[in-house]
Amino acid sequence: MKSYLERLPEIECVILDVDGVMTDGRVGYAANQEDEIKFFDVKDGHAIKLLARAGLRVGILTGRTSRANRIRARELDLAFVYEGEKNKLAAFERLLREQQLTAEQCLYIGDDLVDLPVMRRCRLAVAVADAVDEVLQVADYVTKAGGGRGAIREVAVELLKQRGAWKKVTGRYYE
Amino acid sequence: MKSYLERLPEIECVILDVDGVMTDGRVGYAANQEDEIKFFDVKDGHAIKLLARAGLRVGILTGRTSRANRIRARELDLAFVYEGEKNKLAAFERLLREQQLTAEQCLYIGDDLVDLPVMRRCRLAVAVADAVDEVLQVADYVTKAGGGRGAIREVAVELLKQRGAWKKVTGRYYE
Amino acid sequence: MKSYLERLPEIECVILDVDGVMTDGRVGYAANQEDEIKFFDVKDGHAIKLLARAGLRVGILTGRTSRANRIRARELDLAFVYEGEKNKLAAFERLLREQQLTAEQCLYIGDDLVDLPVMRRCRLAVAVADAVDEVLQVADYVTKAGGGRGAIREVAVELLKQRGAWKKVTGRYYE
Amino acid sequence: MKSYLERLPEIECVILDVDGVMTDGRVGYAANQEDEIKFFDVKDGHAIKLLARAGLRVGILTGRTSRANRIRARELDLAFVYEGEKNKLAAFERLLREQQLTAEQCLYIGDDLVDLPVMRRCRLAVAVADAVDEVLQVADYVTKAGGGRGAIREVAVELLKQRGAWKKVTGRYYE
Repeated sequence: MKSYLERLPEIECVILDVDGVMTDGRVGYAANQEDEIKFFDVKDGHAIKLLARAGLRVGILTGRTSRANRIRARELDLAFVYEGEKNKLAAFERLLREQQLTAEQCLYIGDDLVDLPVMRRCRLAVAVADAVDEVLQVADYVTKAGGGRGAIREVAVELLKQRGAWKKVTGRYYE
Repeated sequence: MKSYLERLPEIECVILDVDGVMTDGRVGYAANQEDEIKFFDVKDGHAIKLLARAGLRVGILTGRTSRANRIRARELDLAFVYEGEKNKLAAFERLLREQQLTAEQCLYIGDDLVDLPVMRRCRLAVAVADAVDEVLQVADYVTKAGGGRGAIREVAVELLKQRGAWKKVTGRYYE
Repeated sequence: MKSYLERLPEIECVILDVDGVMTDGRVGYAANQEDEIKFFDVKDGHAIKLLARAGLRVGILTGRTSRANRIRARELDLAFVYEGEKNKLAAFERLLREQQLTAEQCLYIGDDLVDLPVMRRCRLAVAVADAVDEVLQVADYVTKAGGGRGAIREVAVELLKQRGAWKKVTGRYYE
Repeated sequence: MKSYLERLPEIECVILDVDGVMTDGRVGYAANQEDEIKFFDVKDGHAIKLLARAGLRVGILTGRTSRANRIRARELDLAFVYEGEKNKLAAFERLLREQQLTAEQCLYIGDDLVDLPVMRRCRLAVAVADAVDEVLQVADYVTKAGGGRGAIREVAVELLKQRGAWKKVTGRYYE
């Protein structure tokens, strides 16, 4: 059986849960729910842009709905946003059809129980360091960094290196 | 005398303090007090929904008043919200009458001195890891996680497991 | 010479720096400067109310100006607010006159260089755990907790205990 | 070859990346992107003012654009703000011309790949403790503190001491 590193070059699409993966799992409330506050990591964001530069598709699949998600997705020019999806597996199947992908091309990063069905279906399932036990157990890889604190960066760098794309996408910083 | 774990199946209602329990105890101010900012934990939120799915009632009993509390309560569909209650014990007695509960059915999670009277009255009193000394001393159980960082999750998972409800409420994630 | 603990009962007024003492030193900006965001600690807040209950005066002396300060001061019913004071020592002298206090009755909690002149003038100077070296060196006491994370609580509890007021101000939680 | 400490007195200008250096790399979203939320460190801010007091120029060079940057720059009275600069090296060359500086007079503090070209051009390149590996490797100095948590303060204090300006700029706190 192929290891996590050996399978990374097969990945064409990275699917991200939002809360607890792109963020540290905290949601802030003030005047109203629509404007819930979330904090994203700038280094994770840069890594997502490097993935896109290498030709991969990166997008969001989340059970919650918020403007913060859409602002962040637009800023990073994400390939797709599926939000408010209470049944993540059904949404994942729809995503595969609509984005013309197969599960074997997908890597999913999750942190909680609701992520389990998609994690078992994807080619590669990654858990952030502070995921719940059940998610840590099914993951092909557990990041050293926690959600919202570099977990996505860690996966992206390794994926680009295993794919042999690292030098190409970061070349401009070494000119 | 029954241990904490042995008493968990008797619990029908989980009562939560907000600041320091559902949050890490920080309140943010910007333009005005009405819109004070609080950060809640998404994994705690999911655990609260699992408790409700198992038929338990979960609600808030807090001395402060803020929109953030009510937004969070509505989002999690909490069974009750008692806020602005400077005398928590009096509010707790009223809560028991209004919600038709007995103190023997209630578990309370607290972190500060104002929580002591209710903690001594409830069947089970839980302190978050970063509660003040006086609260740690009277607690039947002290969570490993701090307030706003998984303390509620920790209590909910154990409660559902001791009640024999864990598999039923999480079954959908294993189909 | 009297120790820190021995001098605590002489204190009648606790003067607090805001940023780095009542907060962890982070200031947040979004739409405009007027609405800068600061996070305060709820347990610190409760401790300030206990000090007031024991008859002590507690107030703010800060170089910055913001609505967040005034919101927090009003919520905690502070005895005084001196903000926008670039020269803290001059403001401190004015504070003594206006509040009819002597420096020998005052304890000041600080974290940065601007606090040094007042710290040398007060009866007791406290530094938070994450104060700069120069402040740590002149302090009569360094808290175990960092600014915005319980430093004020720590000072208040010890002060109330040394004063013999702890049982009286917390008695209501043990009835 | 001169060491980091030996070269510090040659520096006349400190250029700061924003996200991950002046902040801890988190950007918060709520109602809209324009108002993204960033948290700055008050002790870092004071250090920047001390540098200016010693006659150094301090400014921002960042790839992102936000009101928070400009609010912070105005509050600290920064000498220049270059934002929205996707090509940092080109912006740096323009900065040198417009501010009439040479690369040999500049110290740059960075944390991510986009900072590499400028870091190789400056007299001194500093990486914050939580910078990415590639940045840590090219840095002349790595701060003990992380971005947004004192990294700038650490550099500024050492620079002022090596320059022999520390006592002059902090003298007012010892009168």
